[in-house]
Amino acid sequence: MSLHGTYDADNIFAKIIRGEVPAAKVFEDDQVLAFMDVFPQSRGHVLVISKTSQARNLLEAETKTLGRLIGAVQKVTQAVTTALKPDGVVVTQFNGAPAGQTIFHLHFHIIPRYEGEALGRHGEGMADAEELRGLAEKIAAAL
Amino acid sequence: MSLHGTYDADNIFAKIIRGEVPAAKVFEDDQVLAFMDVFPQSRGHVLVISKTSQARNLLEAETKTLGRLIGAVQKVTQAVTTALKPDGVVVTQFNGAPAGQTIFHLHFHIIPRYEGEALGRHGEGMADAEELRGLAEKIAAAL
Repeated sequence: MSLHGTYDADNIFAKIIRGEVPAAKVFEDDQVLAFMDVFPQSRGHVLVISKTSQARNLLEAETKTLGRLIGAVQKVTQAVTTALKPDGVVVTQFNGAPAGQTIFHLHFHIIPRYEGEALGRHGEGMADAEELRGLAEKIAAAL
Repeated sequence: MSLHGTYDADNIFAKIIRGEVPAAKVFEDDQVLAFMDVFPQSRGHVLVISKTSQARNLLEAETKTLGRLIGAVQKVTQAVTTALKPDGVVVTQFNGAPAGQTIFHLHFHIIPRYEGEALGRHGEGMADAEELRGLAEKIAAAL
């Protein structure tokens, strides 16, 4: 079911891209946007999305979109590592609701891991907007 | 610790690339190799690696390597979807032992999800080699 379907231009990421919903932005150019996940699974959880593609998931993405995205994912992951000094980083991407996808606009998660700290469950609680802005600035400064 | 270090040319993936250890291959060209994970978290769990890069993780990868890898990840994910009809697919990539990385040669996991089936824990048990070969052939046929 949810691996196939049509793009909903009113999804929350589309609204963030259009500036209708605020986000703690880490990086932005004409193609790609990286911002803090408001339901972080750990300190420094960042999302990376395409601003131009209407791909719902990896299966639908144009080759060029994918190359741009993974390049940005790498740069932001490096910056997260420099800025927050995690012990590890999980990069993950969900396709379809049964795989954990909740927003149907292609996105990559960058989730820092800290030794001895379990991951929070996505959607467990909304992060403090002020704190997210602080983290975004810290990561952006390391880009 | 494990986000930094030197590449160990005797890791299991390097041995698979050199043909010293067998693998149920799904796809191979001069740059990229995709093969079945011998400790699958679900039916059809595939790994995608670079044959030429000595990057231990995403942080260390060359831009070109990354582009090739994500392109192959997409193609194999599409083939897995066609061949096995999962309800969703998780694509994930671990950096550093605290993030779940066990082999320090950059790799992407393609993990099909089936409605109502929980994921097995990685390393829970080794899959039957014959069964993996069958799955690899089925996925390869959909490429």
